[in-house]
Amino acid sequence: MSPLKTAMAEAAAAVDGMLDRLLPRPADAESRLAEAMRYAALGPGKRLRPFLVITGSRLFNVATTSALRVAAAVEMVHAYSLVHDDLPAMDDDEMRRGRPTVHVAFDEATAILAGDGLLTRAFEVLADPLTHSNPAVCCQLIAALADAAGARGMVGGQMIDLMAEHQRLDQAEITRLQMLKTGKLIGFSCEAGAILGRAPAQQRFALQAYAHDLGLAFQIADDLLDIAGDAGEMGKAASKDAAAGKATLVALIGPERARAHARLLARQAVQHLDSFDEKADLLRHLARFVVERRT
Amino acid sequence: MSPLKTAMAEAAAAVDGMLDRLLPRPADAESRLAEAMRYAALGPGKRLRPFLVITGSRLFNVATTSALRVAAAVEMVHAYSLVHDDLPAMDDDEMRRGRPTVHVAFDEATAILAGDGLLTRAFEVLADPLTHSNPAVCCQLIAALADAAGARGMVGGQMIDLMAEHQRLDQAEITRLQMLKTGKLIGFSCEAGAILGRAPAQQRFALQAYAHDLGLAFQIADDLLDIAGDAGEMGKAASKDAAAGKATLVALIGPERARAHARLLARQAVQHLDSFDEKADLLRHLARFVVERRT
Repeated sequence: MSPLKTAMAEAAAAVDGMLDRLLPRPADAESRLAEAMRYAALGPGKRLRPFLVITGSRLFNVATTSALRVAAAVEMVHAYSLVHDDLPAMDDDEMRRGRPTVHVAFDEATAILAGDGLLTRAFEVLADPLTHSNPAVCCQLIAALADAAGARGMVGGQMIDLMAEHQRLDQAEITRLQMLKTGKLIGFSCEAGAILGRAPAQQRFALQAYAHDLGLAFQIADDLLDIAGDAGEMGKAASKDAAAGKATLVALIGPERARAHARLLARQAVQHLDSFDEKADLLRHLARFVVERRT
Repeated sequence: MSPLKTAMAEAAAAVDGMLDRLLPRPADAESRLAEAMRYAALGPGKRLRPFLVITGSRLFNVATTSALRVAAAVEMVHAYSLVHDDLPAMDDDEMRRGRPTVHVAFDEATAILAGDGLLTRAFEVLADPLTHSNPAVCCQLIAALADAAGARGMVGGQMIDLMAEHQRLDQAEITRLQMLKTGKLIGFSCEAGAILGRAPAQQRFALQAYAHDLGLAFQIADDLLDIAGDAGEMGKAASKDAAAGKATLVALIGPERARAHARLLARQAVQHLDSFDEKADLLRHLARFVVERRT
């Protein structure tokens, strides 16, 4: 395995251990809810956002527990967003990564509540002194995550995405949609280590810039896989987004130009890391990897 | 008007002003989301939880802005829970307080996202230094709100409530369900002033005890209104909960014994306030009012 893949697998195992501890299984009447939350957060996945939190935290010598707790909180937010996005009233997906989605494995009401529970738990984890001994740092993390995940971020992006099924967006509008829908949470993931490590603003800005380009490249790569992949490999119905008339850059400018644009973005992302030493090499590898990956 | 009703009306107007400022209307592509969030949070309602935050904060001479911001955050969480509870997959309610519910006035997907956006915004408001200059206080508020609203609180209670349609709960189980579903958020509302004012633990415990009894009394009164009220007065279909076989104390022990129990709880609630001076009179009046109210 390449150093990147090894590091990603290690980060995934570490954050899954933390998620397992942070999402216990109480033997209460409401245990079905806890099971659904665990099903959503601990299912198969690349754990890209936790990897970014953990790798970004290493740049600033952040304590492992702090990084892992923030990584777990981000993954909870990502998992909640997938659970709600998959609902019949939203994207209506029955499969994700080879498993039934939460509302299929459980039921719709449980899926709505499990998403709500995961989002709430993410903020609870960040507010805990175990995440950082300085409460000002915890508040900064919470404010930044809420901005990335809320109406001016991921939730706002999902709203535009749903409306885009009925209207044609231009390139600037699609870029903004994707910045909100996936870019801002990836941005938070890259920035979290700098917040935890109380890094100078300049380094925080560099990581934000890296995240901006990485997020857009990642989204284009995802859309390319969506039209190229077959359903078995992707674990979900391929070309479903395209069939639904979803606004993507690939649909607007074509796969070839989109792939070239993604590569340009990946090169730009790497350049934003110029002020960091070899500790940032995994982030550099990642930028190249996301545009070339096949699954 | 009685002093209590005047104070409740003033608190409602003040928190609505704060909600209006905290939930702006951006002219973006996603403005539909902001409109749905405002529709949910600024609709008609008693604003009981904001009243508790504001009145509790006065016991400890908390700054008005701090109290109003926390009051607005609690109301956002309450509003989000109603939006999600009303969804077709949950309680499937089309009317609330004389208006179409959010998924009827907008659509299901927008309602899910508006709820998500309100919950996220509530934590963002609490993490802001404008809420309290001491970030440790902000973190305590966030941790307490997350506990009250999450899987060990409101969301867990809603899960039990949904499952209770298929099984018969005894009195202890119903009491626990109601503690989780509505009691814990009312508890946070009563306790928030003590957190903001850094009050001694003993006073915080007294307010928690008051909230515990108030919350249960309030729930019984609500269930009594549900079987007694007619649809026009309540603004929703009366007896709907009873018809759905929902677990309530009223259904289990009968309206007469339930009303006597609610009055006992209200008297107990008042007793927990014995260590407070006349500043707590509004809270005392409220405990008596909730069990006698007719709407």
